[in-house]
Amino acid sequence: MSKTSPGNFFEDFRLGQLIQHATPRTITAGDVALYTALYGPRFAVQSSDEFARAIGYPRAPVDDLLVFHVVFGKTVPDVSLNAVANLGYAECRFLKPVYPGDTLSASSEVIGLKENSNRKTGIVYVRSRGRNQHRQDVLEYVRWVMVRKRDEAAPAPAEQVPQLSDAVEAATLGGACPILNTAAYDYALAGAPYRLHDYKPGERIDHIDGMTVEEAEHQLATRLYQNTARVHFNLFSEAQGRFGKRLIYGGHAISLARALSFNGLANAFQVAAINGGRHVAPLFAGATVFAWSQVVARAELPGREDVGALRLRTFATTDRTCADFPGPTGQDYDPAVILDLDYWALIPR
Amino acid sequence: MSKTSPGNFFEDFRLGQLIQHATPRTITAGDVALYTALYGPRFAVQSSDEFARAIGYPRAPVDDLLVFHVVFGKTVPDVSLNAVANLGYAECRFLKPVYPGDTLSASSEVIGLKENSNRKTGIVYVRSRGRNQHRQDVLEYVRWVMVRKRDEAAPAPAEQVPQLSDAVEAATLGGACPILNTAAYDYALAGAPYRLHDYKPGERIDHIDGMTVEEAEHQLATRLYQNTARVHFNLFSEAQGRFGKRLIYGGHAISLARALSFNGLANAFQVAAINGGRHVAPLFAGATVFAWSQVVARAELPGREDVGALRLRTFATTDRTCADFPGPTGQDYDPAVILDLDYWALIPR
Amino acid sequence: MSKTSPGNFFEDFRLGQLIQHATPRTITAGDVALYTALYGPRFAVQSSDEFARAIGYPRAPVDDLLVFHVVFGKTVPDVSLNAVANLGYAECRFLKPVYPGDTLSASSEVIGLKENSNRKTGIVYVRSRGRNQHRQDVLEYVRWVMVRKRDEAAPAPAEQVPQLSDAVEAATLGGACPILNTAAYDYALAGAPYRLHDYKPGERIDHIDGMTVEEAEHQLATRLYQNTARVHFNLFSEAQGRFGKRLIYGGHAISLARALSFNGLANAFQVAAINGGRHVAPLFAGATVFAWSQVVARAELPGREDVGALRLRTFATTDRTCADFPGPTGQDYDPAVILDLDYWALIPR
Repeated sequence: MSKTSPGNFFEDFRLGQLIQHATPRTITAGDVALYTALYGPRFAVQSSDEFARAIGYPRAPVDDLLVFHVVFGKTVPDVSLNAVANLGYAECRFLKPVYPGDTLSASSEVIGLKENSNRKTGIVYVRSRGRNQHRQDVLEYVRWVMVRKRDEAAPAPAEQVPQLSDAVEAATLGGACPILNTAAYDYALAGAPYRLHDYKPGERIDHIDGMTVEEAEHQLATRLYQNTARVHFNLFSEAQGRFGKRLIYGGHAISLARALSFNGLANAFQVAAINGGRHVAPLFAGATVFAWSQVVARAELPGREDVGALRLRTFATTDRTCADFPGPTGQDYDPAVILDLDYWALIPR
Repeated sequence: MSKTSPGNFFEDFRLGQLIQHATPRTITAGDVALYTALYGPRFAVQSSDEFARAIGYPRAPVDDLLVFHVVFGKTVPDVSLNAVANLGYAECRFLKPVYPGDTLSASSEVIGLKENSNRKTGIVYVRSRGRNQHRQDVLEYVRWVMVRKRDEAAPAPAEQVPQLSDAVEAATLGGACPILNTAAYDYALAGAPYRLHDYKPGERIDHIDGMTVEEAEHQLATRLYQNTARVHFNLFSEAQGRFGKRLIYGGHAISLARALSFNGLANAFQVAAINGGRHVAPLFAGATVFAWSQVVARAELPGREDVGALRLRTFATTDRTCADFPGPTGQDYDPAVILDLDYWALIPR
Repeated sequence: MSKTSPGNFFEDFRLGQLIQHATPRTITAGDVALYTALYGPRFAVQSSDEFARAIGYPRAPVDDLLVFHVVFGKTVPDVSLNAVANLGYAECRFLKPVYPGDTLSASSEVIGLKENSNRKTGIVYVRSRGRNQHRQDVLEYVRWVMVRKRDEAAPAPAEQVPQLSDAVEAATLGGACPILNTAAYDYALAGAPYRLHDYKPGERIDHIDGMTVEEAEHQLATRLYQNTARVHFNLFSEAQGRFGKRLIYGGHAISLARALSFNGLANAFQVAAINGGRHVAPLFAGATVFAWSQVVARAELPGREDVGALRLRTFATTDRTCADFPGPTGQDYDPAVILDLDYWALIPR
């Protein structure tokens, strides 16, 4: 029998199955520096130990999206190595802060299965969890992917599609953010004066700047996350594939859009939850990514005087500026849109 | 009102204005590793904790140019986002050593303003300072840039051009270098036997090696420095711009030239001051950078038996070796020259 | 006299000569993160401090090949700057574990010299050693390179070719691996259930995945190792050279093949020795690297109940999958093969 794993196919998953993913990972200051070099984030809390300490963190926490990517990467060899498409995310919550030196591992539970009518593929729903060395969950999220069957004739499991929330409830946010002394939050150092109540639902913000993506960059990023999806790395096979070229990890687009969003959202320092996300179109090297955000909602958090939450919908485009806020157009999207991300960010009150 | 900052235009600056720049930054071993990967420096003091400790540092200090780039990067969103050209540096001094774990922030004072006769642009002179978490200045320098006006009709401020030194006085050098036990300085490990008095004013040194620059490399570098100048990252806009392509951050050329200069200046381990620097021509990806240096002067430092200073003029070229020392030719430069950097380096006596 | 070193030529070497190489290097978590980003290794022992501690390491050790590359890099300016070809490795043993914070330096002894009949080049054999800050050897290996003569007329040294072992004796392996508590080794976290006795001599394993190499990636890697061989960095000179382009450092191919080999060898967590290695063909950017391994032998180690050793022969190819195990064909190799590496890896019993 082969010692090489080809990954799971649709018929390999069972409802309720719990998968412990391989390769625990200690996050270090080296990972943080690479994350900065890859995306150029400028949020003061994650950039400066001093800034973080002044407001009540023991030191600068690791960027939430770096945590997400590391946990996500671990799930790939078991969940999505034979995926045709990554269909969506939901119910993603950041539960505990992560600091350099923490070690993350990941597990997934199969919470839904649905064969497609062509019997060649099926949809797998998993709830994945990232856990630290103290066995505390730091992150959980639901993801669903369309996975190939090994054998079209394999019997289909009973269809089960999980009920998923449209949005994480604001009242459950904030676990990854200690109670902060926001009196010590220096708005000049943070880069802008705007707080929770300066943002109005419906408000639209063009983040202006654009960032061109290179092959070496997304490969470095995706390997840093120990994500093994071959579409990101293997030009030889992808040249013969659907796109004729390497497809960039969707999370790379999310991190680029988030880093660009500093210009306009400088104090929205923590991603507290991801309500949903859709990779509207693929991203390829050579494209320049732009982003804009709409404020969807504003929430106070029970028992917290320090921070509140903004529900944001951030759109990323390629090779198109966002001054006129390109987004959904009826059932479809402006053709330049590649990402539609709905998330909650914490911001001082 | 928009929450997005478009950066300052010429008419936004006021003489004497003090700007606190955003995003303090804790420098880590991760940044140091990236700096090594980006340029390949081989100076033993910055490369080895053991070597540094043996001669009297608490541990290996952070490369001076990494400190410079991080401080410089912070000034960009406020000072040069609307710059047409980075015209020069002067009076740059490294004042305290920086170690991994230190947090840097930056501020700038507007020390000069001069509208250009076309009324479309003006020159802004700033003295920028980098400061550590103990509120000690680690770096200061003057920079002047040509900045666009938002509105040609905006009234010009009173013209004020600061008097700047041609060179930093040798007697003021050395703040960033503790008193060293140079008896413990191992010249074999350092890579060459040459000390202060082995170099003669007028001597010219070809650093021989060449380094080709890739787009991914300078983008990683410039994001690592949280420098947001769009010309470095945004192919979509630059394709329509002056050069038709991304322009590489000038500091990237400085760091390449400095790293190449190890071959010939192995013991000139610290950049103590930058007297002046001129980006003679732009640098683009695909070019191979070479460098040579001329010894301009040699100085002993008051009260210091351990180290002295070499005043060096380092020229970088693209796609041209430096065996015949291409440099200024009358009013102009050899067409391959991209950098003319005048700096002081410390070296054991 | 020039202060720039052009490197040693064949006639500069003397039998028995001991060379202390320049630039000691403190290995940090930053280097480890970059190594992960460059190759995507997933061996749990090197990835997780927690996993490593559970089985008896003080923390996660540095990847053996990162140690190799750093030591190798130091030897380049003295040994192979004027090399025409890197001919082989032998008797490479990893002797002590290396952890972030350790400082490595390197020295080489000339153990063989043989002028070629054309009198233009000669073969230099060196035994190189990497040493930590406690003056303990962490690595030793023999390398032989074909080096140009400066002057064809220079007299040839007496010919001396060292007797080298075909393979490191299994009984001498394991110095870089403390005695482990393998009862605490978690095979689910490690990624596969296979131990020493699950592998059979003769068994062949296709590692399936492919990795495309970019210029920026191998340049970052090779500078990280402070390797100064110009063929890797200098497009201007290489465009006029043998291949018309930059040649990738051979060690980059070794690390790619090793990282790919996780899929099939997940528990073969430490490279204990390299018996020999041949860069069968050059590697250039744009190529996609694949790999497969053959189990050559299996060995128990004297006095060790925890781990044994697998002797593996790993072949890397470019732009060709390895499902049919392309390798040697008589005197030659399949034209896609670029690497033939013979090494010992430790694996739990």
